[in-house]
Amino acid sequence: MEIDEQHNAALAKVAEIIGDAKFAMLTTLEKDGTLRSRPMATMQLDGDGNLWFFTSQSSPKIVEAKPDQQVNLAYMRTDKQDYLSISGAAELVHDREKMQDLWSPWVKPWFPKELDDPDLALLKVSIMEAEYWDAPDSATARADAHAHSHNAPLPRKSP
Amino acid sequence: MEIDEQHNAALAKVAEIIGDAKFAMLTTLEKDGTLRSRPMATMQLDGDGNLWFFTSQSSPKIVEAKPDQQVNLAYMRTDKQDYLSISGAAELVHDREKMQDLWSPWVKPWFPKELDDPDLALLKVSIMEAEYWDAPDSATARADAHAHSHNAPLPRKSP
Repeated sequence: MEIDEQHNAALAKVAEIIGDAKFAMLTTLEKDGTLRSRPMATMQLDGDGNLWFFTSQSSPKIVEAKPDQQVNLAYMRTDKQDYLSISGAAELVHDREKMQDLWSPWVKPWFPKELDDPDLALLKVSIMEAEYWDAPDSATARADAHAHSHNAPLPRKSP
Repeated sequence: MEIDEQHNAALAKVAEIIGDAKFAMLTTLEKDGTLRSRPMATMQLDGDGNLWFFTSQSSPKIVEAKPDQQVNLAYMRTDKQDYLSISGAAELVHDREKMQDLWSPWVKPWFPKELDDPDLALLKVSIMEAEYWDAPDSATARADAHAHSHNAPLPRKSP
């Protein structure tokens, strides 16, 4: 996994937790109004505050990933009692070059055809807000993450 | 934490993961359309498939907890690569006796006034669907959890 230097200093702690935890639970709002989550392996946190994942574009979670779909990513470091909530906007990205950059042999079990899999796509989550805790139910810090603001402003104000 | 015997056998594995992980990330849909999560300490999985948590009724997550509000609970056992998604309906419960039953000294740091805190309440999540993975992105089992069906049927069919 790649953790790039963050242009937004508030994301430094966020980057540390993500780098350690690696797997997130991605929660989406389903059409029937329920909330579902599933594990996702984080491939990169880029310098603009975007998180990148491999996914199958035909999988149910992706069918729903219309532009700017709101999602939540939850990361935990249970040994340190670190918990991180990321609210963001998700989009499917088809970019062969980016997929090559991010490919890693350890994701092969889930995508055995590797980059030749026509179903393989990238899920990009632009961080809109990140909040973390070092003990349950007590927010110790909120990183208002405007990391996206210089490349793709999203229609949401921070609290 | 109490893990009661499950009337629904499909919840046995779910109970095992919850008992081990103890902390969940609770995701809710906010009024502005974003999804947020925050850590919650699980106090009990009762025999009817309900999960119980202590909460402050004035905290933002609770303001939103109207009857049958849809939520997601994500549990992780990172050492075993176990991931669990629970879709459920949340409600605030005010029940002094139940709070006494569930009270534990280890939650005192978050609720220093203990049971005398007028802001203290219970959050009950009725499990509607549980799905777990033992490796990312590959659902190995889905427990269609109708654990609630004999006490409080909720208006949702399973997939």
